[in-house]
Amino acid sequence: MQFSKRLDNVETSAIRELFKLLGKPGIISFAGGFPDSAMFDIEGIKEASRRALSEEPGPSLQYGATEGYNPLREQLVEFMATKGITGLDFNQLIVTTGSQQALDLVGKTLLEPGDTALVEAPTFLATIQCFRLYGPKVLGVPIDADGVLVDVLEEMILKHKPKIVYLVPSFGNPSGALTSVQRRMRILELAVKYKTVIVEDDPYSDLYFTPDPPPLSLLALSDQVPGSRDWIIYCGSMSKVLSPGLRVGWLVGKPDFLSRATMCKQFGDAHTSTFAQATAAFYLKSGRMASTLENVRSVYAQRARVMGESMSQELGQALSFDTPLGGLFFWAKLTGLKKDGSQFQNPTLDGNLFAKKAIEHNVAFVPGSPFYADNPDQSTLRLSFATADEAKIKNGMKRLALALE
Amino acid sequence: MQFSKRLDNVETSAIRELFKLLGKPGIISFAGGFPDSAMFDIEGIKEASRRALSEEPGPSLQYGATEGYNPLREQLVEFMATKGITGLDFNQLIVTTGSQQALDLVGKTLLEPGDTALVEAPTFLATIQCFRLYGPKVLGVPIDADGVLVDVLEEMILKHKPKIVYLVPSFGNPSGALTSVQRRMRILELAVKYKTVIVEDDPYSDLYFTPDPPPLSLLALSDQVPGSRDWIIYCGSMSKVLSPGLRVGWLVGKPDFLSRATMCKQFGDAHTSTFAQATAAFYLKSGRMASTLENVRSVYAQRARVMGESMSQELGQALSFDTPLGGLFFWAKLTGLKKDGSQFQNPTLDGNLFAKKAIEHNVAFVPGSPFYADNPDQSTLRLSFATADEAKIKNGMKRLALALE
Repeated sequence: MQFSKRLDNVETSAIRELFKLLGKPGIISFAGGFPDSAMFDIEGIKEASRRALSEEPGPSLQYGATEGYNPLREQLVEFMATKGITGLDFNQLIVTTGSQQALDLVGKTLLEPGDTALVEAPTFLATIQCFRLYGPKVLGVPIDADGVLVDVLEEMILKHKPKIVYLVPSFGNPSGALTSVQRRMRILELAVKYKTVIVEDDPYSDLYFTPDPPPLSLLALSDQVPGSRDWIIYCGSMSKVLSPGLRVGWLVGKPDFLSRATMCKQFGDAHTSTFAQATAAFYLKSGRMASTLENVRSVYAQRARVMGESMSQELGQALSFDTPLGGLFFWAKLTGLKKDGSQFQNPTLDGNLFAKKAIEHNVAFVPGSPFYADNPDQSTLRLSFATADEAKIKNGMKRLALALE
Repeated sequence: MQFSKRLDNVETSAIRELFKLLGKPGIISFAGGFPDSAMFDIEGIKEASRRALSEEPGPSLQYGATEGYNPLREQLVEFMATKGITGLDFNQLIVTTGSQQALDLVGKTLLEPGDTALVEAPTFLATIQCFRLYGPKVLGVPIDADGVLVDVLEEMILKHKPKIVYLVPSFGNPSGALTSVQRRMRILELAVKYKTVIVEDDPYSDLYFTPDPPPLSLLALSDQVPGSRDWIIYCGSMSKVLSPGLRVGWLVGKPDFLSRATMCKQFGDAHTSTFAQATAAFYLKSGRMASTLENVRSVYAQRARVMGESMSQELGQALSFDTPLGGLFFWAKLTGLKKDGSQFQNPTLDGNLFAKKAIEHNVAFVPGSPFYADNPDQSTLRLSFATADEAKIKNGMKRLALALE
């Protein structure tokens, strides 16, 4: 069997190999990229699915429109309005099979060999791979804790004339970075100035740990920068706030893009599970989302605080990191120093090696290098605080300190 | 916004335009391509989803493996065994978001510009479009009521060296044709002789109207033709027998193909809804499928019989057709004659024109020409008997006769 050459552009993730080791008994894992199952609102989802099958059995079980189940599209418009995205009509979004499919449709609709896509460095691994299957060059733009470096972004837009720029402005995976409002406005200006498509991936913005929510999304802010709305494609997701297992995401864009993305979806999976869509619609309609969000925010905020404190205490100057203001992840760098700031004789700056050592000490995290499209920083690590309770976080950090010795 | 050139290979379906007219009040529609919602086992699905969320809430709502939810994969192995496909292990299949996604993964994994895919003429429209988005030439191989013409198929394999041959051996959409067991064996021999991948799409084989089931699938028969199993990719679906809204299909293939298809799926939608998968798994486990299948078979068989008799009675020699032995569709051809066999003064052999006339008479069907990859036969029509009861079928045929006048 001879396979398509597009497969040569991607390799199976190094992380997948690591995940095979996580079955080890007694391991404390900070490696996951998923929310805590213990916080799913099972009763609310059960009631929503029961209502879907009782009140709308036909639409819940029959083929549906590729664009999505209209009652869900209407609920998603209302959900986005709670995040300051207003003035949308449900025809301006399509429902996707998770936001992973939204990214795939962006790739299929827009990218081809010879194109360039710019992404943050580091960024969501599955985006890099997903785009590469469509043949473009994928290049990383450096970031700091305030998000993408906009001056470098402008230089790279001028130099590479990218077809798209992919950004996760709020609490990205793996960086946890939060793009400042000033930079968001600059990004929108660059989009207009260089007629560049900005793909905004926004699965984490509801998971903030501050009293106030993060800056408005690029999509919401585009009202303030004339002409910029036309260049924004927005990807939303129910996965981090309600349930990943429903596979309900959505895609917002202007009509000419959205009609083409819909055609690609029609021949990709016909439509997203109407059963899952109707369940999500009844859930959103039930009004339970607000308290669900409050609950996950407070639990994750507490775990993030504990992880930050515990990491400082146990690993001291061996790691540098910023405590994230939202999301699911810490992004840390090996400094090559010991906890007390003194030099190692043979310092390691290799996150892969450290990850293997850590597993020997029954604690797991993900090395950061796979999250770079190019020029990986080998000294980086991603640690999730989402699925471990306080005791495990503290215990895990102690084990990490031992592994570093 | 500049779109990918791959989109130039497909146009939005002509059928979609037709479907917009179906909202007309009082219309009798034979146009649909879907099963009858009235026959969904709503109570069984409700109970299965309740059990999924009660007994397996974590796995039903959390991220899952791209390959699929293992209890469902095990149930699908058992389901296939009832169709004579034996000796499979659940690792030899992956769950897909409907069999439409299985087709998309076949395209993404195998097809690229410069390739040729052979399909039946006529065949499932969404397969033609799905494949074309990956750039190959798609060519039709003629068929009759006994399936693809295997001698022509061999000639075309020799001439075009296709990367894949896509076949729906049992009751295909739109043809309703049933490939004979003799031809099935020849197809398997051709696969081995020419090292050609055969993609077997099998969503309809459970919907048979005869006392005995149709011939075994190519996948099952491959046990009898040494070496042929390696060349078969099999696509299964729950959509026509349980519910399309769950979007549960599956893909069987050899390990090197399946691992690549899994990678493409990973970056396509991460995994199929675990909620839908767990619901399907509990449904299959409940043992209700056998009686569900008996029920849909008997209802569709009756409707097919009525449509055949009524079409003969009302349209006589104006249409030529074979009454299908299973599936959801009649495939008919305008003969250019009147009901009584006499000549029209200005005979029409244009199915598109006839479809428009029919809608004026409040009855709808789908013209057959879009179902050809090339060289469409304009005189063809597809009529579904799945969603209309007997009275509607008879009434609709009377209207069709009026439209033909």
